[in-house]
Amino acid sequence: MAELIEITDAADPRLGDYRDLRDVQLRRLLEAEHGLFLAEGEKVVRRALEGGYAPRSFLMAERWLDGLADLLAGTDAPCYVLSEELAEQVTGFHVHRGALASMHRRPLPSVAEVIDGARSVLVLEDIVDHTNVGAVFRSGAAMGIDAVLLSPRCADPFYRRAIKVAMGAVFSMPWTRLPEWRGALPELSAAGFTTIALTLAEDAVPIEEAVEGLSKVALVLGSEGPGISPRWQAEADRRAIIPMREGIDSLNVAAASAVACYLTTRALPKA
Amino acid sequence: MAELIEITDAADPRLGDYRDLRDVQLRRLLEAEHGLFLAEGEKVVRRALEGGYAPRSFLMAERWLDGLADLLAGTDAPCYVLSEELAEQVTGFHVHRGALASMHRRPLPSVAEVIDGARSVLVLEDIVDHTNVGAVFRSGAAMGIDAVLLSPRCADPFYRRAIKVAMGAVFSMPWTRLPEWRGALPELSAAGFTTIALTLAEDAVPIEEAVEGLSKVALVLGSEGPGISPRWQAEADRRAIIPMREGIDSLNVAAASAVACYLTTRALPKA
Repeated sequence: MAELIEITDAADPRLGDYRDLRDVQLRRLLEAEHGLFLAEGEKVVRRALEGGYAPRSFLMAERWLDGLADLLAGTDAPCYVLSEELAEQVTGFHVHRGALASMHRRPLPSVAEVIDGARSVLVLEDIVDHTNVGAVFRSGAAMGIDAVLLSPRCADPFYRRAIKVAMGAVFSMPWTRLPEWRGALPELSAAGFTTIALTLAEDAVPIEEAVEGLSKVALVLGSEGPGISPRWQAEADRRAIIPMREGIDSLNVAAASAVACYLTTRALPKA
Repeated sequence: MAELIEITDAADPRLGDYRDLRDVQLRRLLEAEHGLFLAEGEKVVRRALEGGYAPRSFLMAERWLDGLADLLAGTDAPCYVLSEELAEQVTGFHVHRGALASMHRRPLPSVAEVIDGARSVLVLEDIVDHTNVGAVFRSGAAMGIDAVLLSPRCADPFYRRAIKVAMGAVFSMPWTRLPEWRGALPELSAAGFTTIALTLAEDAVPIEEAVEGLSKVALVLGSEGPGISPRWQAEADRRAIIPMREGIDSLNVAAASAVACYLTTRALPKA
């Protein structure tokens, strides 16, 4: 059972994990150095625990205690209880969804572990926006994609906003970060995946055609503005496009990934 | 040629259209009463003008004048030129994308005008989030949807954030607001559309099956939490679902609309 600790001072040093949640730079440093991440809202906290992540502590106003009683019963981590005003002073914003939890990160698995047994993999190149990373995880999970690989420059899927947008899919979806940008796609090809870059390149074929008849697919997505790097475009086994109305040449990356993931998993032979 | 007017006082009454852009409540009132909307950034301003909307005025820092010189040459509306600091004081935020324009709204067309000749229509029920409305317009336009109809409670597609997320697609896509929530779907059916509600209802069939062989489709989307109202679900000709991985029961509305629009326009006979 979590120990309930009443907090009456916003400067209480035990609240260090929860400070200044809107300051992206500061949070990145703090979370990296302490190996933690923040889960926000009952549903997301629940999914983090179900995903096997261990809590460092909880923070919530009293009225949220009941809804999380079953979770608090199963842990020894402290639960800091404070007024909503005090919570806002600490975190820097109004915590709409009530509960927060600070969780231990785990060492990232190797690429080999993540792709083992996978038939469909998303590979994200330099998607630096947390919201977009979260949205891609959510759509990918819904569409039955088996794993996600991130280029070294991609935004952190365990950053609070990414977790929230992903609705916790970052906890159930196997993922890791590619140790090297160079050589990543050829390695996937060597592991039996057909790598398909979504791009507006001239030799791009409609995505439905590109995925047809394949049994292991790695879908490669870049960010909206710059798109996929020339190296990755050249190294991908195929280049594909989502056909769009004439005169329109881009989709939001979350929308594009939803369509591409749907068409990919639908084309795979039934498991 | 637009008259360039240098502004040195944030309280200048001529800047009324541009005040407090982050205050949603206040902006709604102001924009409704004055029949205006705000376009932000060179690309969006350009698309609003190309869409035939007339400017009331422009506001920008001096360094953005060159990029918009061709647009300013073609209008008699005043262009207020001021420092970025002053612009921030007026609008309440840092105007990243440089230029702002205040534009005249036009009377909304009738439903009959909007659906005339359309083969694919999106019908949005009570999507109250501006970002989601904008994202649905953007995906719909990219996927070749012909028109959008909004229920009375949907968010305003001409609100600044919706316009921005839509990347200006709200200016090229024919749309209007349904005068009545009641009876809207039967009217579309009477006009020859097969109305298809995206829902988790028990009798929902996979969306690809639902759209097969149709020549005129109205896709009905609701918001993520509550979904489509019981009345609209019952009144729709068909109920359809985007098949998802077991245990996952929702997609972001922007992702769902992208997939549904793709599958719908692809199923229509070639024009």
